[in-house]
Amino acid sequence: MSTFETIPSVTRDTRYVLTLGCPDTTGIVARISTFLADVGGWIVEAAYHSDADSGWFFTRQAVRADSVSLSLDELRARFAAEVAAELGPETEWRLTSSAEPKDIVLLVSKEGHCLHDIVGRVATGELNARIAAVIGNHEDLRDFTERLDIPFHHVPFPGPGEDKSAAFARVAELTDALNPDAVVLARFMQVLPADLCAAWAGRAINIHHSFLPSFVGARPYHQAFARGVKLIGATCHYVTADLDAGPIIEQDVARVDHADAAADMVLRGRDIEKVVLARGLRWHLENRVLVHGRKTVVFS
Amino acid sequence: MSTFETIPSVTRDTRYVLTLGCPDTTGIVARISTFLADVGGWIVEAAYHSDADSGWFFTRQAVRADSVSLSLDELRARFAAEVAAELGPETEWRLTSSAEPKDIVLLVSKEGHCLHDIVGRVATGELNARIAAVIGNHEDLRDFTERLDIPFHHVPFPGPGEDKSAAFARVAELTDALNPDAVVLARFMQVLPADLCAAWAGRAINIHHSFLPSFVGARPYHQAFARGVKLIGATCHYVTADLDAGPIIEQDVARVDHADAAADMVLRGRDIEKVVLARGLRWHLENRVLVHGRKTVVFS
Amino acid sequence: MSTFETIPSVTRDTRYVLTLGCPDTTGIVARISTFLADVGGWIVEAAYHSDADSGWFFTRQAVRADSVSLSLDELRARFAAEVAAELGPETEWRLTSSAEPKDIVLLVSKEGHCLHDIVGRVATGELNARIAAVIGNHEDLRDFTERLDIPFHHVPFPGPGEDKSAAFARVAELTDALNPDAVVLARFMQVLPADLCAAWAGRAINIHHSFLPSFVGARPYHQAFARGVKLIGATCHYVTADLDAGPIIEQDVARVDHADAAADMVLRGRDIEKVVLARGLRWHLENRVLVHGRKTVVFS
Amino acid sequence: MSTFETIPSVTRDTRYVLTLGCPDTTGIVARISTFLADVGGWIVEAAYHSDADSGWFFTRQAVRADSVSLSLDELRARFAAEVAAELGPETEWRLTSSAEPKDIVLLVSKEGHCLHDIVGRVATGELNARIAAVIGNHEDLRDFTERLDIPFHHVPFPGPGEDKSAAFARVAELTDALNPDAVVLARFMQVLPADLCAAWAGRAINIHHSFLPSFVGARPYHQAFARGVKLIGATCHYVTADLDAGPIIEQDVARVDHADAAADMVLRGRDIEKVVLARGLRWHLENRVLVHGRKTVVFS
Repeated sequence: MSTFETIPSVTRDTRYVLTLGCPDTTGIVARISTFLADVGGWIVEAAYHSDADSGWFFTRQAVRADSVSLSLDELRARFAAEVAAELGPETEWRLTSSAEPKDIVLLVSKEGHCLHDIVGRVATGELNARIAAVIGNHEDLRDFTERLDIPFHHVPFPGPGEDKSAAFARVAELTDALNPDAVVLARFMQVLPADLCAAWAGRAINIHHSFLPSFVGARPYHQAFARGVKLIGATCHYVTADLDAGPIIEQDVARVDHADAAADMVLRGRDIEKVVLARGLRWHLENRVLVHGRKTVVFS
Repeated sequence: MSTFETIPSVTRDTRYVLTLGCPDTTGIVARISTFLADVGGWIVEAAYHSDADSGWFFTRQAVRADSVSLSLDELRARFAAEVAAELGPETEWRLTSSAEPKDIVLLVSKEGHCLHDIVGRVATGELNARIAAVIGNHEDLRDFTERLDIPFHHVPFPGPGEDKSAAFARVAELTDALNPDAVVLARFMQVLPADLCAAWAGRAINIHHSFLPSFVGARPYHQAFARGVKLIGATCHYVTADLDAGPIIEQDVARVDHADAAADMVLRGRDIEKVVLARGLRWHLENRVLVHGRKTVVFS
Repeated sequence: MSTFETIPSVTRDTRYVLTLGCPDTTGIVARISTFLADVGGWIVEAAYHSDADSGWFFTRQAVRADSVSLSLDELRARFAAEVAAELGPETEWRLTSSAEPKDIVLLVSKEGHCLHDIVGRVATGELNARIAAVIGNHEDLRDFTERLDIPFHHVPFPGPGEDKSAAFARVAELTDALNPDAVVLARFMQVLPADLCAAWAGRAINIHHSFLPSFVGARPYHQAFARGVKLIGATCHYVTADLDAGPIIEQDVARVDHADAAADMVLRGRDIEKVVLARGLRWHLENRVLVHGRKTVVFS
Repeated sequence: MSTFETIPSVTRDTRYVLTLGCPDTTGIVARISTFLADVGGWIVEAAYHSDADSGWFFTRQAVRADSVSLSLDELRARFAAEVAAELGPETEWRLTSSAEPKDIVLLVSKEGHCLHDIVGRVATGELNARIAAVIGNHEDLRDFTERLDIPFHHVPFPGPGEDKSAAFARVAELTDALNPDAVVLARFMQVLPADLCAAWAGRAINIHHSFLPSFVGARPYHQAFARGVKLIGATCHYVTADLDAGPIIEQDVARVDHADAAADMVLRGRDIEKVVLARGLRWHLENRVLVHGRKTVVFS
């Protein structure tokens, strides 16, 4: 756990955050908002989405915690009994408090730009989170990490084609011991095996350095250079067993031209990777991302 | 009224659209959504905003017209009695149907790019609107306009420093006879007098060719060139008696560099002017813009 | 040929424009710039690119025509003898005058937004071009086109799976009679056969409604919706026999989110299609695009 | 000087970089490129700009150092004698090597995001630079800075309205002892006095958290919120005695809407501040920025 001195420049009131998805029907909003009004909830954020394609309804609502006289557990119990029960068995919902910082484990390789960026955002309080550990398959980022009193674990990986299961088991052991809210593949460069994708479903977040679905797999900037595209991109997505095909949380692009060699694209792409990962990670930690099938609803 | 043959590529179900602003308090969403559920309304769009700064609450809701068994007038009467009355005397609300095309009057000068663009968007059905008339202080755009069977009126304006009140009176007479939903200053290049700003409050929309509040007034691209900015912009706003200071609906920018002369900026800026005006106008016509004081809430 | 009255708002001095590509070596710039200085050329634009990957050198230079005492033909003859001959047999170069408007043939289907947009840009003089003809496989855009005195030809196409060679032969006949500088597939929705791709190589320009190489082929917005991407795009490229794989001239993107249905993406995408095609077409007409293999050098 | 272990992921060949500005006339490019060809220079980057407004010519050329048989000093001497002398006494030029890392001094206050960002870019080798010292008017950023073995100096500043000359003298003394290539006001929040602006002319770089010339001075995000703009911005510029009016190096913007309070804009704006400052600083350190009057030519 990082103990280096940070002076957060962001302070926010504590909020109770409800996220919910269920089959769409008339009157859901009325039911939820009447419930929140009954418990005195002062709504500070409210977002809704009716998905005509899937027939599902999604909402995220944030109320000021100090406007509700119930504890979080009491609120959960009443919501379950008075609202969720009526919305049917397929309904998925969560009620959480924004007060507690979330725990993150970062998986890294040699490239440090995403690590540097997330460390900075934790230090300024932009991310209400703790970096519980950094796990690297190389030693390159140990010095920077440990100087900031963040635990660094080196797990060496065998080369291409060799059996990596022992290395992944060690990564899983170190990670699961910390029970993190997010496992971030911050340019990790190793493909997670299917069992870890399943175990960390909805919590493992990857930053891929292309505008997916273009340029899946290795060396996407070199693929982009060879194709002669005029924009490069980055994609933050949940990790699934299908390589680079998980639900997309966020994407962005930057302009390149004929004067940019592949190495220039690598450099320029870093700035997109950093902001796309940072947005995706923050939205995940603030419960702004609802996954439905292969897609996401993001109440940003 | 344009009679040239258009084949709209956009079709949408008819919707009843509610927009409302009132002092914020607990339970407003519950009241409105319970009302809509009671009349059977199938909500297809719902957006809310609680403005902590002004203490006002804003919402826009769209329901499928065929889900409600009442006529629009009946719905209005019931909403007035059952909801609006309870929300207090400051409440401002509208209930409209999306079925009827809106009427637009365009005020133009010599530059045709915004006129061309809006004509195209009407032709494709992107704007559910009719161009009731084009009024120009020069003849330059008559030929293009009349070829498409849109009425064109030439109202000559006196030069700088001379009394323009008679010319503006003629513009007002021609415009008011058509009772348009929007009066669009599509690069009109004349400053509306205060009485017209008042008469058309909330309906007169201007496109200013800078990123306001930078470069108010004349020749903003030349001002931008002189200052050496690296982005140029355009701003769509409601017209008020304060020059270029009305509530902003939309803005956007484009990159320029040292190689761009002021004339290049003029050319490049046209593409931003067109899309910024088009977005602002469409949001206005679809009742997506709520004005509060000097600012707008845009449920885009 | 369009005869409707246009009042161009853009005037530019006539320029002689040199474009050149050759194997890279030391001293090319010195040779070319010394030649231009010798003939008195006042360079108003100069751009260079050394492509480390292919080992080729590219340049585009524009000089004021009135600074050179030679005719264009004389200038060509001297450049061929004094410069090009020394640069080797692989050298490709052109010397053209910006004075003459270029001829465009537009191939269209039912969607009019790209046609409307290009017509507007010709009318304002932004494109120094004439629309020599519009050829449609449907009648939908005849009325708009003919009102502006632009010839419209309807060439009916058989349905999917049937032999389209007669229809394409008619399109080719109509087009080739006009010997256009650009054949623009302005949302034509028909795949050009290989022989026409070859005949129009470097002159046939397509606008594809996705950020290539993502979503090749039919209904790209629906593919984008199904994948859940957070940005949609458009790509302007030269047409080759490989579907949607020709050299890319320009691309751009727009943000979408979970609330956008495929139909919303279609609407929003139009604005990107229009500007991306307009930029690509203008650069092509101004000899700013040099093709090398599968890629382009764009001196924009 | 920072001694923490960094493993640059960027390696580049050494280049000799020529930057030059002079009154425009025919034949300058020929003279320079002939000179470079004569000394065997392999040009890897070349950019030119003829400014029609000011009548000046600007160029930046980078040649591979290993292609030139002369030392840097010899090259300078020959360029002075053979080229610069002929271009007249107003000519300003520099010839530098890209091999040597540049020295930076950062002036900071309480907000760490720009400091974090620059530290990361130095660590990855994106900036070929050393952070010679960080000087803060508060202690907040000492811990982070010193953990990375970068010297931190605290110089307390008196409150508004009091005489700050002693504090600025101390800042100048600490800074000038290091003779840095760039003095970066990384959200320093203090207005440099005129004498320091003069002493550091062309070396002092500020990041202002608005899209200048909008919102000069204090609390620009709060000014932006009050005006209701739809985009916020950041501007990197050279510091001059006119507050926030120095030559602009780079700008960018991000979208906001009615749901963003001023505090949200502050958060969102940080990402723009970081990338805008990073681009501007890198271009400055790589001699890509030529100042002429109140404007810059940026060969990015």
